[in-house]
Amino acid sequence: MIAAPAPLYTSTGVFLCFEGGEGAGKTTQSRLLEAWLRERGHDALLTREPGGSEVGAELRRILLDPATGDLSPRTEALVYAADKAEHVDALLMPALERGEVIVCDRYVDSSLAYQGAGRALDVAELDPMLRWATRGLRPHLTILLDLAPQTGLGRFEERDRIEAEGIEFHQRVRDGFLRLAAADAEHYLVLDARAPVEEIHAAITARVEPLLTQAVRAGEER
Amino acid sequence: MIAAPAPLYTSTGVFLCFEGGEGAGKTTQSRLLEAWLRERGHDALLTREPGGSEVGAELRRILLDPATGDLSPRTEALVYAADKAEHVDALLMPALERGEVIVCDRYVDSSLAYQGAGRALDVAELDPMLRWATRGLRPHLTILLDLAPQTGLGRFEERDRIEAEGIEFHQRVRDGFLRLAAADAEHYLVLDARAPVEEIHAAITARVEPLLTQAVRAGEER
Repeated sequence: MIAAPAPLYTSTGVFLCFEGGEGAGKTTQSRLLEAWLRERGHDALLTREPGGSEVGAELRRILLDPATGDLSPRTEALVYAADKAEHVDALLMPALERGEVIVCDRYVDSSLAYQGAGRALDVAELDPMLRWATRGLRPHLTILLDLAPQTGLGRFEERDRIEAEGIEFHQRVRDGFLRLAAADAEHYLVLDARAPVEEIHAAITARVEPLLTQAVRAGEER
Repeated sequence: MIAAPAPLYTSTGVFLCFEGGEGAGKTTQSRLLEAWLRERGHDALLTREPGGSEVGAELRRILLDPATGDLSPRTEALVYAADKAEHVDALLMPALERGEVIVCDRYVDSSLAYQGAGRALDVAELDPMLRWATRGLRPHLTILLDLAPQTGLGRFEERDRIEAEGIEFHQRVRDGFLRLAAADAEHYLVLDARAPVEEIHAAITARVEPLLTQAVRAGEER
């Protein structure tokens, strides 16, 4: 049995994640949030999974390249977990220790939703494996941009290996995200991704602002 | 908690693994064993980890290429586990179901020895993760070619990313292998790798022969 580490919320830095299906606007909103943080003098680190670390970029290519073809669901889950382990150890933990504000496009919830709900692996088995991979590190806030997959996928012309899955797969993924948010409302902000970009951004900054007290502002003494 | 699957020994096919440190003769002996099996009319599958599957070949390159540089120990363990998950699902299980005899150069024990004993990750955490990755599949026999690392490493001029670790690392790996064999004598054959090649081969075939009753001979009705 893996005794998975307890959830860890760091006491320095602020860890913010975006989650949601394809085409929900995560990239747009994470960039807007990063810019807003910088304007307010914070050291913001914009990053993503998979692919946020050096080896992660290679793992991302394997995971998303349609040429990779079918992978066993366990293989896929373990490659995502490896990407996360490196991201946490090499980038996220050090940035949080420096008091920075991380804006991360996808994190553990994506693995639970895509490899658990989507691929029908047992979430009860995936969860401790992912917690072991990430040393239990949890975001202070996860912003879930919720969107019906029919709408989101329509925004793409070319699809990667994951996007190319059928609509039922993406529906299970959406349900998986919503279940995770419902189970831990304190750490989630769920927004309707069909709202105008500026309206979503305003809702995000309103929720993020009170969390910034433990972030170190750029230029302050450390 | 992960409820890791129970050890699984298939009732068709025969799963034979070679384990041991660098330069212990695993490649030589696995080829000799494969040839011996084929001479006796068995469908033998010679394979290896990492790198036995298609995606595994890419993962192997990442793991062994010195250009990859330092990885977090968890990252390394998870990439090895991903390689194993794909190898088990895509190659090993189907071959065993067909009644073939698998000769595999390295398997789960290498991860426990290198990433557990060597990298000082907790074997009690690694073991269920690896069992989950491999669906609990265990070799009917693991042949451990035991050798002092000073002797084995001297056989190489160029070293890959793992071989390039210091002698204390490789000593911990050797001890790790020996502990695994001692804990489950029924499924292990431990041989002194300094013995002559033909003598080692003879000891292996003597132990393997009685295990072949559940293998299907090539050409027989299935």
